[in-house]
Amino acid sequence: MSDSPILLTPGPLTTAIETRRAMLRDWGSRDPAFIALTAELRAGLLRVAKGEGTHVAVPLQGSGTFIVEAAIATLVGPQDKLLVLINGAYGERMVTIAKRMGRAVEALRWPEDRPVEAARVAEALRADPSITHVALVHCETTTGLLNPVEDVAAAVAEAGRAFLLDAMSSFGALPLDLSATPVTAVLASSNKCLEGVPGIGFALVTPAALEAAAGRSPLLSFDLHAQWKGFEKDGQWRFTPPVQVVAALVEALRAFEAEGGQPARLARYADNLRTMLAGMRRLGFELFLDESLQAPIIATFRLPESLAFRPFYDALAERGFLIYPGKLTQAETFRIGCIGALGRADFERLLAAVEEVLAPA
Amino acid sequence: MSDSPILLTPGPLTTAIETRRAMLRDWGSRDPAFIALTAELRAGLLRVAKGEGTHVAVPLQGSGTFIVEAAIATLVGPQDKLLVLINGAYGERMVTIAKRMGRAVEALRWPEDRPVEAARVAEALRADPSITHVALVHCETTTGLLNPVEDVAAAVAEAGRAFLLDAMSSFGALPLDLSATPVTAVLASSNKCLEGVPGIGFALVTPAALEAAAGRSPLLSFDLHAQWKGFEKDGQWRFTPPVQVVAALVEALRAFEAEGGQPARLARYADNLRTMLAGMRRLGFELFLDESLQAPIIATFRLPESLAFRPFYDALAERGFLIYPGKLTQAETFRIGCIGALGRADFERLLAAVEEVLAPA
Repeated sequence: MSDSPILLTPGPLTTAIETRRAMLRDWGSRDPAFIALTAELRAGLLRVAKGEGTHVAVPLQGSGTFIVEAAIATLVGPQDKLLVLINGAYGERMVTIAKRMGRAVEALRWPEDRPVEAARVAEALRADPSITHVALVHCETTTGLLNPVEDVAAAVAEAGRAFLLDAMSSFGALPLDLSATPVTAVLASSNKCLEGVPGIGFALVTPAALEAAAGRSPLLSFDLHAQWKGFEKDGQWRFTPPVQVVAALVEALRAFEAEGGQPARLARYADNLRTMLAGMRRLGFELFLDESLQAPIIATFRLPESLAFRPFYDALAERGFLIYPGKLTQAETFRIGCIGALGRADFERLLAAVEEVLAPA
Repeated sequence: MSDSPILLTPGPLTTAIETRRAMLRDWGSRDPAFIALTAELRAGLLRVAKGEGTHVAVPLQGSGTFIVEAAIATLVGPQDKLLVLINGAYGERMVTIAKRMGRAVEALRWPEDRPVEAARVAEALRADPSITHVALVHCETTTGLLNPVEDVAAAVAEAGRAFLLDAMSSFGALPLDLSATPVTAVLASSNKCLEGVPGIGFALVTPAALEAAAGRSPLLSFDLHAQWKGFEKDGQWRFTPPVQVVAALVEALRAFEAEGGQPARLARYADNLRTMLAGMRRLGFELFLDESLQAPIIATFRLPESLAFRPFYDALAERGFLIYPGKLTQAETFRIGCIGALGRADFERLLAAVEEVLAPA
C-alpha cells in the first residue's frame, strides 16, 4: 500500500499532493497574509455557485454537520417553523438538530430510492402557512440520490418561504447557479467536491437573511451573522481558524478553477462513475438506485449474499483502496465514491483489485 | 522573510516541520488506521495531565471557543448556575456563552493585573448555595497572568461544586495533575502549548459528569456526552474529523513526550521568557504585569508613547516575526508569545530585530 490510500468515500477524500503541501507553512491568523488568504477563500466559494451578486460566503470551523447546525441556529428563529424534505439520513439529521434546539420542525418523507417531489412540497406549503423555512439535501450521501433542487427552490420561492440547501456532497460538482435559483442559504464543506481537507464548512447566504438574524443564535460560535460581521469588519475569523486547512482549501479552489470549474469537475466525476459502474456490473454487482437518479458523487451497490462487507473492505484496503459501508435502513449495501482527486486510471485499478478479491483462491 | 514566519502569538503558533509534514497524507476517517490514530490521541491527551485514572478525553472539531461552548452546553444544565471567575477577556467570554444559551450565570471579577483569590471564591460559594459550577481560566491570554488553579480547585471541591478549567493556553506547559487536583473538566486546544496546528479542541472530563449529562446539550454537535459515547462505541468521531489536524497533533504529542513532557516544555518556555524579558527591558520596554504573576506563555508589554503598534508590527513582520496586539481595556499594550516550537536562538534573533526597528534611521 502506498503512503496514502485511495479514498472512495464521501469525504475526507483523496486530495492532490499540492493541496496537502499547502499545509507545510505556519500562518499568523491575524496577519495580513492570512487575511488575504481568507478573502480569496470567500470570493472563490461564491464564484463556484455564481453567488457574487446575491450571496456572501461565511466559512465556519468544524465539520459539515457544524455548518448545518449553525445555519439552523442562526436562520430559523424561535417563532419560525422548518419543513425538512427527507429521503435519507442527512435529512433526518436536520430534524434531530432542529428538535434539540427547540425549533418547530415538520418532516415530509420519501423512500430512500425516490427523489423529493416539488409538487408535494408546494402542496404542503399551501396547507401550512406557518412554515417559514424549507430544507433540502441536494445529493443524499446515504444513497447518492440527486434531488431536483431547481424545482423545489421554485416551489419554495413561489410560496414565499426561505430555502436552505444542504449541498454538502454536491457543491462544486453539480450545477448550482445562485444568480438564477432562489436559495436563501447553501451549506457545504471543504472536504467534498472542492477536494480540500476536512476542517471547515461554509454557508453562502443572502445578506438580507443574515441581517434579519442578528443576535438570534443561542450559540456564540454558531452565530453566522456575527461570523459574517467579523469578516466584514477586519477580514479576520472571530475565533482561531484552522489556518492550514484554509490554506489547503484555497489551493484546492485554485486547482478547481484551473481544471475548468464545475463543468470540468462534473465531467471527470461522471467519467469516474461510468468507468466504475460498467466494471462493477461486469463483476456482477447491482446498483441500488435507478441509474437516472444516481449522482456522480457516491454509488450504492447491493451487497451480494455471498459477500460479507468486512472481509471485502479489508481485502481492498490491503490493496490500497478504502470503500465505504452502506447507510440504508432497508437493504444490505456498500458505497463507492466517485469524488476526489481521482481519474479513470484509478477506477480501472480499483476494478482490477475488486476482481482479484472476488476470484476464487 | 523565510517561507513560514516566526509566530510570537497565542496560537496558531510556530510548529515543528515534522508536525506539518504529518499532514501530507490522506486518511479515511472510518478506517482502522485512523481509528488507531484517534485512540493514540485520546490516550496521549490524558497522559499530559495525569488523567488516565480519573478522566476521559473528548476531542471536538473547531476552535478553543467551540470546546468551551460545548462544555457549558453539555455540563451546565438548565437548572444549574455557573459562577465564572474573571480577570480577562476569556472569562468574560464564558459569561457571554452561558447567557446566550439561557443558562443562569454569575461573575466574580478581579482587575486584569490581579490573580483570582480562592478565599473570595469560597466566600461566594458559601453565600450562594444555588451555584452548581465554577469556571476559571488557568492562564488569561489577555495579559499572560497565571491564576492559582490548585487553590481555587480545592475551594470549589470543599464546597461540593463542579469545576471547569479553561486551560487553553497553559495545557502541556504549566503543571496540572488531575490525579491530585479536583477538576471536573479541563478544556484546551490543539494549537497552543502542545504545538499542534489549529482545528480541534478537547475536554478531559470525569465520566460521572458526562454520564449525568446525557441528552442535555441543546446542540447535536456540541454534545460531549454523545461525542464520548461515539468514541467508546467504535473508536470513530461522530462527524467528519479534520484528519490531517489530528495526525499533526498526534505527531506533536510524540514530540512532546520525546522532549520530556510538561517539565521540559515549561523549562524551554521559561527560558524563552527570561531571554525575551531581559532583552526587552534592556531595550526600554516595561512588562505590564508584576513579574511574579507572569506565566511563560505570553507577555504583555506597555506600548511606549513614542511607538505606534501598526508600524512596529509591520517592521517586525518584514523581518519574519509576527507579534500580537494587546487585548486590554485599561492600557495601550502589545503582546509577545513565548510558546511554540521556538528556543533561545529565536528570541535572540527577535531582540536583534526589535533593536534594529527601534534604531534611529
